[in-house]
Amino acid sequence: MKVKKFIDLNSDLGESFGQWKMGNDQAMLQVVSSANIACGFHAGSPVTILDTLKAAKTNKVTIGAHVGYPDLVGFGRRNMEIESNELTADVIYQIGALKGLATSIGAKVSYVKPHGALYNTIANDKRQAMAVINAICQIDANLILVALAGSALIGWAKQKGLHVVAEAFADRSYHVDGTLVSRKETGAVLHDPELVAERMLQLVRDGGVTSIEGKFVTIEADSICVHGDSEGALAMAQKVREKLQQNGITITSFTKISDR
Amino acid sequence: MKVKKFIDLNSDLGESFGQWKMGNDQAMLQVVSSANIACGFHAGSPVTILDTLKAAKTNKVTIGAHVGYPDLVGFGRRNMEIESNELTADVIYQIGALKGLATSIGAKVSYVKPHGALYNTIANDKRQAMAVINAICQIDANLILVALAGSALIGWAKQKGLHVVAEAFADRSYHVDGTLVSRKETGAVLHDPELVAERMLQLVRDGGVTSIEGKFVTIEADSICVHGDSEGALAMAQKVREKLQQNGITITSFTKISDR
Amino acid sequence: MKVKKFIDLNSDLGESFGQWKMGNDQAMLQVVSSANIACGFHAGSPVTILDTLKAAKTNKVTIGAHVGYPDLVGFGRRNMEIESNELTADVIYQIGALKGLATSIGAKVSYVKPHGALYNTIANDKRQAMAVINAICQIDANLILVALAGSALIGWAKQKGLHVVAEAFADRSYHVDGTLVSRKETGAVLHDPELVAERMLQLVRDGGVTSIEGKFVTIEADSICVHGDSEGALAMAQKVREKLQQNGITITSFTKISDR
Amino acid sequence: MKVKKFIDLNSDLGESFGQWKMGNDQAMLQVVSSANIACGFHAGSPVTILDTLKAAKTNKVTIGAHVGYPDLVGFGRRNMEIESNELTADVIYQIGALKGLATSIGAKVSYVKPHGALYNTIANDKRQAMAVINAICQIDANLILVALAGSALIGWAKQKGLHVVAEAFADRSYHVDGTLVSRKETGAVLHDPELVAERMLQLVRDGGVTSIEGKFVTIEADSICVHGDSEGALAMAQKVREKLQQNGITITSFTKISDR
Repeated sequence: MKVKKFIDLNSDLGESFGQWKMGNDQAMLQVVSSANIACGFHAGSPVTILDTLKAAKTNKVTIGAHVGYPDLVGFGRRNMEIESNELTADVIYQIGALKGLATSIGAKVSYVKPHGALYNTIANDKRQAMAVINAICQIDANLILVALAGSALIGWAKQKGLHVVAEAFADRSYHVDGTLVSRKETGAVLHDPELVAERMLQLVRDGGVTSIEGKFVTIEADSICVHGDSEGALAMAQKVREKLQQNGITITSFTKISDR
Repeated sequence: MKVKKFIDLNSDLGESFGQWKMGNDQAMLQVVSSANIACGFHAGSPVTILDTLKAAKTNKVTIGAHVGYPDLVGFGRRNMEIESNELTADVIYQIGALKGLATSIGAKVSYVKPHGALYNTIANDKRQAMAVINAICQIDANLILVALAGSALIGWAKQKGLHVVAEAFADRSYHVDGTLVSRKETGAVLHDPELVAERMLQLVRDGGVTSIEGKFVTIEADSICVHGDSEGALAMAQKVREKLQQNGITITSFTKISDR
Repeated sequence: MKVKKFIDLNSDLGESFGQWKMGNDQAMLQVVSSANIACGFHAGSPVTILDTLKAAKTNKVTIGAHVGYPDLVGFGRRNMEIESNELTADVIYQIGALKGLATSIGAKVSYVKPHGALYNTIANDKRQAMAVINAICQIDANLILVALAGSALIGWAKQKGLHVVAEAFADRSYHVDGTLVSRKETGAVLHDPELVAERMLQLVRDGGVTSIEGKFVTIEADSICVHGDSEGALAMAQKVREKLQQNGITITSFTKISDR
Repeated sequence: MKVKKFIDLNSDLGESFGQWKMGNDQAMLQVVSSANIACGFHAGSPVTILDTLKAAKTNKVTIGAHVGYPDLVGFGRRNMEIESNELTADVIYQIGALKGLATSIGAKVSYVKPHGALYNTIANDKRQAMAVINAICQIDANLILVALAGSALIGWAKQKGLHVVAEAFADRSYHVDGTLVSRKETGAVLHDPELVAERMLQLVRDGGVTSIEGKFVTIEADSICVHGDSEGALAMAQKVREKLQQNGITITSFTKISDR
């Protein structure tokens, strides 16, 4: 087994909207190597997006388009049965808008990570998945797709020639088959920063985590998703970073790892 | 005086939104050489924009970003006192989104024409004008700005190094000082297609039109704006094109005229 | 079997938005006895809604709140997995807004008919159905709910004490079990105005229609939904009205029939 | 001079939107006697509005409709040149929606206070002011209008028969002519809670405050506007309440003062 010396940490940023603030982007940009930046459909208004892009650039954090359903009031967290051609156009529109704002400050969009309900849906729904994959292929086939480790989406995207980076969730439990424990079940979400940090070290070192059933499960992931939307979440993210670095793991964007 | 053999015709297209249709894009794409395509803020949803872009490409019509205020219900026709940094970000966002959609089909955005209240405001309001000019410079300084002939905007944009194309309105009367007759005054809008076509021939041949005061006024314009939002408007636009072509004038985009 | 001498015709109106026009409200208000008026979430802006309300009042047409999902760009036609408390608040908000506009011109909202994807979903999805039923009970329990004939929704609503009016669709085929033939199947939508009018006469006289399987199926409906969104649809609606009237059936709102 | 024993404190509440939280409604509902609740155009989504209404009812705080321009991304703080009939319909729509939500929980909307740019504009712009006044008269002429003390709006509204309550701003300086010192000038906004509380006691006791020019100026106001959008603002609001109560002034809604 190849021992990893590098891992990417990503988080959702740029989720303010107009006068409404959300998250602590400044603090999280010290923690992560990749920033999933909202594109205006589920969160983010042009000027708040631009501010986040500037901060990401200053902090040398890799920029990704965090594309979502057109559902501001629902924060992109509601499943929507949207036609494929509409979804493709929506995704291209969002990536284009973010690219435009990035270009205006000399920054670059390197990847795409779908948000919320869209993320969950396309992990398994081929029709909507293909609509997103096609969008990426059509606007810029060099964009990397960040996808749920173990999801069907990964295969579909690779088949169309996309670079894919699989991600694990720092604060979530896994079943022995590699799927996430549903949020509806007890123990699905982990709250102890030390435990979470230990598990992420396990993930990077051993290539998997201890499943909720007690057995080790392999999780192939080149990025770890951490959250920053509360004091506790921020502290946990910082702990994960600290623990990994203390153990000789370099936190760096997947775009900078040559053998991806 | 240089006798022109070429002129550009432009029109506002792509103004449908979701299930709502507006205008007759297919017919107008036979008439114009440049299409001002809505970018989603005052009109246009991603899939309707994409459809218009495809049709423009098929018809070899030059594509421009028709950027507007964030005012869908008001169709961008209401003046808004918007902060400069917000306006700059809004314009970059819109251009970026349109560029993204254009890229996805192998098309290109060549110019920017502000829409509605934004168009009227920045003709004279330096603060908002500079916000728009800065947006264009920051995202792509090669984009041409289409502006009202005789407006202060032209000078401000040129000073920042932008290429500017001045436009005249086919169906509007002009004062002897080169300003448009206000819509509130009698005779501001012309309705006779033959008269309008004759005036546009005069504009191209003689470099100006007969003002409402009766004297000839010079109008420096490399593009003529025509409308297609009613049967009558479409017929007038077709008449203008026909008259110009019958008199040896080639209808072609300003992007294709070398000596601009 | 009770022979009906009265029937209600309803149609979706007020679906313009800002500068975008949809449908032919003026013509349809001559055809129908009940107007389902959009409330701003899937269609309708305050001033276009107000104009439709005024026209409905002038034409003595009964007014209903056509409530939808918060999805303007999708016209409320996309299924959305929306939380119950959010859906309840959304429906109350829309009914309240329409009531306010109606009050301002001395008109009255008498019923509620959900729109598009919401209509289809709550026919069978109890969670979302109860969210809508609760909304109606909480804002005004005298409002009548218009629901799909034969749907589970009818029972749920009656159990909560709501008045319910079942409706049939003029241009749709029915299975022998009383369910609608899916739009994906051949023959689901009927296009011959004469045939449709004959079937609606059959519905009123005989209490049902000939199913797609060839056998008569009972459809308990006190209202017939007709469309006006195209020239053909308008002509069909007019034909249905004409045929019914020629056969001694009075077109009148269900709110005016005492024995409902 | 009549010595007042009562005064109303009002504040802007219900300004969250979807997942975005704003302000500390729970704390402010302990301070104020009147709550200006956003109606969805500049802030507030149905479920967040409903939650605020419930909390206002629990705290026995009088409820007002905080109506604004249709400008979510700009938080209703941008001047908009909106047609009178559109503005009237927009205001009716918002009041109706809030009334609907209030009705659903057995609460009542008692007054209207325009928000942000709309508030400032109609203080002096008669066209837009009349559009708002007409909206209130048309939906419910018993609604009280809360307006800037000394503004022209007060006279226009009274002439149309509306009850008007004038308000002063706790944290703002006044000129000797009774107008607010512009935010662009030094000293326009006061930051010392003790000073602000003393001034509000002066306002209630003496019927005016010391102007920025040093002379006493009469301010006829039956309500004081306080803010709660920051820790400091909340502390200041609490201080004002405390100071007034310690000096025998009862904080109570203007709707409960018989001789208004």
